[in-house]
Amino acid sequence: MRPGPYERHHELLQSIVRASAAGECRRPFTEATGQDAADAGMRSTRTAGKVFRSLLGRTFALPQPGETGLVRTEASPYGVGPAIAYPRCDPAELVAAAGRAAAGWRVAGPYERAGLAVEILRRLNTRSHELALAVHHTTGQPLQAAFHAAGPRAQDRGLQVVAQAFAESERVPADSHWKITGRGGQPCTLRGTCTLVPRGVSLLVGCPDFPLWNGYPGLFAGLVTGNPVVVAPHPRSVLPLAITVRVARQVLAEAGHSPDLVTLAVAEPERQVHRRLATDPAVRIVDFTGSARFADWLEQHARQAAVFANRTGLNTVVVDSTDDYQGLVRGLALSSCRCNGTVRTTPQNILVPERGFSTDEGHKTLRDLGADLDEAVDRLLGHPARAARLLGAITADEVSSALTEAARCGPVLHASGPVAHPDHPYADLRSPLLVRLRASDERVYTREWPGPVTFLVGTDSTSHSLALLRRTVARHGALYVSVHSTDPLVLAAAETAALDAGVHLVENLDDLPADPSSALAELPGADAHFVTGRFRVVRSRRRAPAAAPVPAPDRPAVAAGSPAATAALIDV
Amino acid sequence: MRPGPYERHHELLQSIVRASAAGECRRPFTEATGQDAADAGMRSTRTAGKVFRSLLGRTFALPQPGETGLVRTEASPYGVGPAIAYPRCDPAELVAAAGRAAAGWRVAGPYERAGLAVEILRRLNTRSHELALAVHHTTGQPLQAAFHAAGPRAQDRGLQVVAQAFAESERVPADSHWKITGRGGQPCTLRGTCTLVPRGVSLLVGCPDFPLWNGYPGLFAGLVTGNPVVVAPHPRSVLPLAITVRVARQVLAEAGHSPDLVTLAVAEPERQVHRRLATDPAVRIVDFTGSARFADWLEQHARQAAVFANRTGLNTVVVDSTDDYQGLVRGLALSSCRCNGTVRTTPQNILVPERGFSTDEGHKTLRDLGADLDEAVDRLLGHPARAARLLGAITADEVSSALTEAARCGPVLHASGPVAHPDHPYADLRSPLLVRLRASDERVYTREWPGPVTFLVGTDSTSHSLALLRRTVARHGALYVSVHSTDPLVLAAAETAALDAGVHLVENLDDLPADPSSALAELPGADAHFVTGRFRVVRSRRRAPAAAPVPAPDRPAVAAGSPAATAALIDV
Repeated sequence: MRPGPYERHHELLQSIVRASAAGECRRPFTEATGQDAADAGMRSTRTAGKVFRSLLGRTFALPQPGETGLVRTEASPYGVGPAIAYPRCDPAELVAAAGRAAAGWRVAGPYERAGLAVEILRRLNTRSHELALAVHHTTGQPLQAAFHAAGPRAQDRGLQVVAQAFAESERVPADSHWKITGRGGQPCTLRGTCTLVPRGVSLLVGCPDFPLWNGYPGLFAGLVTGNPVVVAPHPRSVLPLAITVRVARQVLAEAGHSPDLVTLAVAEPERQVHRRLATDPAVRIVDFTGSARFADWLEQHARQAAVFANRTGLNTVVVDSTDDYQGLVRGLALSSCRCNGTVRTTPQNILVPERGFSTDEGHKTLRDLGADLDEAVDRLLGHPARAARLLGAITADEVSSALTEAARCGPVLHASGPVAHPDHPYADLRSPLLVRLRASDERVYTREWPGPVTFLVGTDSTSHSLALLRRTVARHGALYVSVHSTDPLVLAAAETAALDAGVHLVENLDDLPADPSSALAELPGADAHFVTGRFRVVRSRRRAPAAAPVPAPDRPAVAAGSPAATAALIDV
Repeated sequence: MRPGPYERHHELLQSIVRASAAGECRRPFTEATGQDAADAGMRSTRTAGKVFRSLLGRTFALPQPGETGLVRTEASPYGVGPAIAYPRCDPAELVAAAGRAAAGWRVAGPYERAGLAVEILRRLNTRSHELALAVHHTTGQPLQAAFHAAGPRAQDRGLQVVAQAFAESERVPADSHWKITGRGGQPCTLRGTCTLVPRGVSLLVGCPDFPLWNGYPGLFAGLVTGNPVVVAPHPRSVLPLAITVRVARQVLAEAGHSPDLVTLAVAEPERQVHRRLATDPAVRIVDFTGSARFADWLEQHARQAAVFANRTGLNTVVVDSTDDYQGLVRGLALSSCRCNGTVRTTPQNILVPERGFSTDEGHKTLRDLGADLDEAVDRLLGHPARAARLLGAITADEVSSALTEAARCGPVLHASGPVAHPDHPYADLRSPLLVRLRASDERVYTREWPGPVTFLVGTDSTSHSLALLRRTVARHGALYVSVHSTDPLVLAAAETAALDAGVHLVENLDDLPADPSSALAELPGADAHFVTGRFRVVRSRRRAPAAAPVPAPDRPAVAAGSPAATAALIDV
């Protein structure tokens, strides 16, 4: 007999679960990428390039229920075209098809589901270069950054969630026995079974700038806990998720499951497909990474669903003091270059005492920092090839207008201007805009600004900076905040402020926040709620037969040694 | 140095966590109740009786912020009085005080919090008889049932949640180290810390009939995960939660914490204190057990909060066949006697094929079952002392009017009538009402009826019964459903129907559902979401100092061996 998907991948899964329990983080897809892989990668890039070009201007083959026509919503910011046509399906039909597929998926059980999820990731891994090109040409990210956010690292991020969901499923005790006093005082043994019951149809609202990096956690957490997933990409960045959905459907169909467990919902923006799906009574889970504004809308309107919203919000840097001023300046200059889209992973607000701060190069004023950042940015972008590796191509009109509008909000420390791309003459690359603001300009810097817009905000003191951070981030969210200080008391105060605001904190690290595929989000210890909020546990109980207890049907023999699977006699 | 609360209780906590991981269920408070304890219990009951009587007609001493007067809302259904006066506090003040206390409680960390929670339960345990009397005289439950729902079993239920919340907190890795490639390609070690950040002020909406049994899980899950709890009892049943709150405040204050981490919000019903609190922007968690109607209201209106609603709904029995007809009849008769309040733990709807079903005593029609239930109820209640042990005293006018109204909905199989209590002449005891309905009377049997109202619903077949169950329970919820059948195919179909409806299932057990403190809710494997939905994990990271990693400050030395506390080197 051919081994099932779980049997094929259980060693990998168990090793990741064990590592996580020990506080470690295994990243098998990334670890496999050594020099050999890099050489193969260059060949793969050429092959992937051919595959990618073969998609352009064609209809993306994806037979799904409820198709009503074709839709083209993407335009490569590098001017590569023509656009791909995707099937447009009636959202209600996709939800209905997902609902029909759900019962079989629940019955498949967590072992089969986790095995198939690993299989999907394994196949996606063989197409990393194609996915990276898809991200590059839809989000405008430089190719190397796109490979980071779409390739092995993104797959490892998905795998972490698969392992986490699998571990949570395993912790549900399959079978237990306990004694009660039955009729006439006779002892009687009861048998209990726990079953994980998925919440229902899941909706993934695609992120325009990091569609896979931010999409895989919700997609795989949903699938492994038994929920079908309707994937609704951002209209600007459909292809990466479309390829993902097609791979998932192939794997599911080959294993005898309904492919409609994963579907693609794409439509012209004016059809509001995200809002229609998010408020569909049958949609019970929504995943979203992006603006606090849409996250708030979801929480207000998708009342029937559990909403997992990751607010990018106001990533903020507090500068108090440093023993590496050059590193600080270079890190901030780099970060300011690395935002070309509308979903920020880079800092927007840099809070600095107006009177300046102490460094290894002596006292520096806010004015000094502004001048040094200006110069550092110019130095970074001085070489066209390096500029093209750093700057992404602008994808949205709102970025251009944000650059114009932000330049009017205060004294400009570094003006944003066009930068030529050596290979793509039509790509719209812009150097970052640095604007100086006062603390009282809160109305300006509490907006989420798209694109390479960074504010240097003068404050009364570091205490004032931390108070601003606490208030603005608690209200508007952030992916992280960052603090630079040589003073342990300031670092402790920053930790408290970050906990009060409920936001991740980075201390004295110049380079980390700039790269979304960095370790920032990969530390084990992700919220268990992200997985456990997607199912409930339903129990059944009956008199135990005289015979020995039989293992639960959906739990394969290889797992029989796990503690939760052991039947136990409980005296109640 | 005196050991802290965690050091005092860590062995107990760790043993419960280990047992749960092995699929077992430890119940130390219940296990301690042997014959010696029962003897001591009789003495305790006398002492508790004195304590209880000393409270009557007095002001319940509970100094809290924002007191605006006194309020009396209870009336003993056994005619014991006069009523107790409780301080009425401005709900907004209570929430504000909870908010002020929150920061210190977060800093205390999960070890200290779990230790103090165990200490609160341990003190409540010494007052089990007083709590049982409080439940008896406010809910009208017979004394023995009240002891089950208010004493060691309820405390063990609380302890399970404490252990679960503690285990989830321990799974958050305190400290990890990993390597990155830093500036200039130099390897650099990062240190990461994870901190559990509580969601915010928690509201416990008290249950009128099982205030402690249904209240302890939310109260202790909230406290251990770091959230202050405002306890808002049902106006009819304040005393059990008031005693609980007073004990909790004492334990907290003695340990140097703000007592305002646990407060009591009680007011005249017309002040709508539950609705005001549930929609307070600062309230971030709501716990509720009761009607689907109020659960729906909470989910629609308490948008700022995570709502943990346990819908009692339409507990339903499907009768298909049995090999113990006498046991079936006796079990159903018992169940029908055991509802005197408005929150049902007993079945309301018994679905039986109109044409009858096969039994060990031959074919029985729906008419036979009705007649036999009628006779069994009369036999059970024939002896006054036994009747007083079985029937609770009616507490609410809505129960009396429901009995009158339900009797008009179909042919009455057993009329509800007054039953005299041998000790309490003023207690309003009623025998159960059994009414026959047709499947088409869905409008009647999909309402939640309070008090001893049971419908015998004739269906076309068992398939029809299961279809009704699936539809009505999926829509209106239920604590559990029950099926009686000798046919494995029917049992399998019932399991699927229960999973579809997302409800716990009991198979061929006559007596279990009647007793809410039974094993029904005590099997390990409760939803992890119940705990993990109350906090998030916030991470911070920095360069590791050259020295060896130091343990996180809030993790005491005794836990250093746990895997999550071990620092690990992760290569990224």
